[in-house]
Amino acid sequence: MSSENTITLYETTGFPNPARIRAALAEKNALNQVAFIEVDVMNLEHRSEEFYAKNPTGTVPVLRTLEGEYLSESTAITEYIDALFDGPSLTGTTPIERGVIHMMQRRAESMVMDAVATYFHHATDGLGPALETYQCSEWGNYQKQRALAGFAYFNKLLENNLYVAANTFSMADITLFYGLAFAEFAGLQIPSELTHLIAWRETMSQRDCFSAN
Amino acid sequence: MSSENTITLYETTGFPNPARIRAALAEKNALNQVAFIEVDVMNLEHRSEEFYAKNPTGTVPVLRTLEGEYLSESTAITEYIDALFDGPSLTGTTPIERGVIHMMQRRAESMVMDAVATYFHHATDGLGPALETYQCSEWGNYQKQRALAGFAYFNKLLENNLYVAANTFSMADITLFYGLAFAEFAGLQIPSELTHLIAWRETMSQRDCFSAN
Ligand SMILES: N[C@@H](CCC(=O)N[C@@H](CS)C(=O)NCC(=O)O)C(=O)O
Ligand SMILES: N[C@@H](CCC(=O)N[C@@H](CS)C(=O)NCC(=O)O)C(=O)O
Repeated sequence: MSSENTITLYETTGFPNPARIRAALAEKNALNQVAFIEVDVMNLEHRSEEFYAKNPTGTVPVLRTLEGEYLSESTAITEYIDALFDGPSLTGTTPIERGVIHMMQRRAESMVMDAVATYFHHATDGLGPALETYQCSEWGNYQKQRALAGFAYFNKLLENNLYVAANTFSMADITLFYGLAFAEFAGLQIPSELTHLIAWRETMSQRDCFSAN
Repeated sequence: MSSENTITLYETTGFPNPARIRAALAEKNALNQVAFIEVDVMNLEHRSEEFYAKNPTGTVPVLRTLEGEYLSESTAITEYIDALFDGPSLTGTTPIERGVIHMMQRRAESMVMDAVATYFHHATDGLGPALETYQCSEWGNYQKQRALAGFAYFNKLLENNLYVAANTFSMADITLFYGLAFAEFAGLQIPSELTHLIAWRETMSQRDCFSAN
């Protein structure tokens, strides 16, 4: 593929937020319409001048659009992908669906994905001393408690629901799924009594967009 | 208005996130289609069982939809409003617009609105001892620095742009506008050399959706 008029995803293999974009592309059957470039986070490539020009917040994923613009923030990239490609909607089509999916997407981020990330980067060794140049362990441990509360919240929600939002598979499921994967990586276990969350995760793990990546 | 089949906004006058919803409704010319209920945050009404049933995260705004569902998270509520009512789009219509507006919306939140909020609630007296039951001042002061970096980022962005995203007024402008209002309230001044940000704020303050609320 040429780099002109090609969509390019800057990602880091094994990291949870870039994985959200892979899953969204898989759901839209569009993985073959995107070029992938690996960003070497462990060697600080995401903190170079060149990368900051693409994303001033210095995080992956970043997506270069057909128009040549650089998008960051996984939710924003998912909105772009969802509107661009055919296939089942990941962000909702009616007003109420859009509202509920965005609400649950945000909760999956703030209560799980971002809470786990803050615990990991601030209250554990995280990515190691070269990357973790500032740590606030008190806040990191507080976020660990918030993540555990987030697990309990979603466990209750999933007692009577197959999906996180609006009775349909959506970006909110993708975010929760990789939020839980991140938690496992960070050594934060889902308490065994949260059986609905554990069962949901097991079912999801067999879905193509997660298992084939 | 009856409470059935009426949209109701639970808000707290003078607070920045509820103000985002008022501005979105004003842009859509839909303020007269919504009922408003004041939530007494200073007397902890948002931490009652009754309010947690509407929003488990215990924050305003909350919007009761036509369908009787409770939406929280200002971005999600804005998506609902934008899709439901006619008028200029606040969230974008093309894939690239949707992507850029959601990206900038998220940056306005994380770099300004939420950074200021964390500074306010953790490193100042915030809403007072009855409400601020846990404070981590180190993290609050760190977020103050992030907010100042956010001001500088948006100042540069607005040097050559009338609006925060996609050359059009959007929810990203609304979030930045109230993020700056919150900063002022919290005693965080925009440094005087950030002339583009200051000029943008001045221009915006004359827009109907902000001045008539
Ligand atoms: N809010 C961002 C978060 C992106 C993020 O934090 N990405 C991580 C990888 S999963 C990263 O780039 N970390 C680099 C670092 O910690 O230095 C999004 O939604 O994409
Ligand atoms: N992410 C939420 C934030 C909502 C929020 O923090 N609201 C503030 C008022 S602006 C609140 O309810 N604060 C109550 C408290 O601090 O106890 C949104 O987008 O609506």
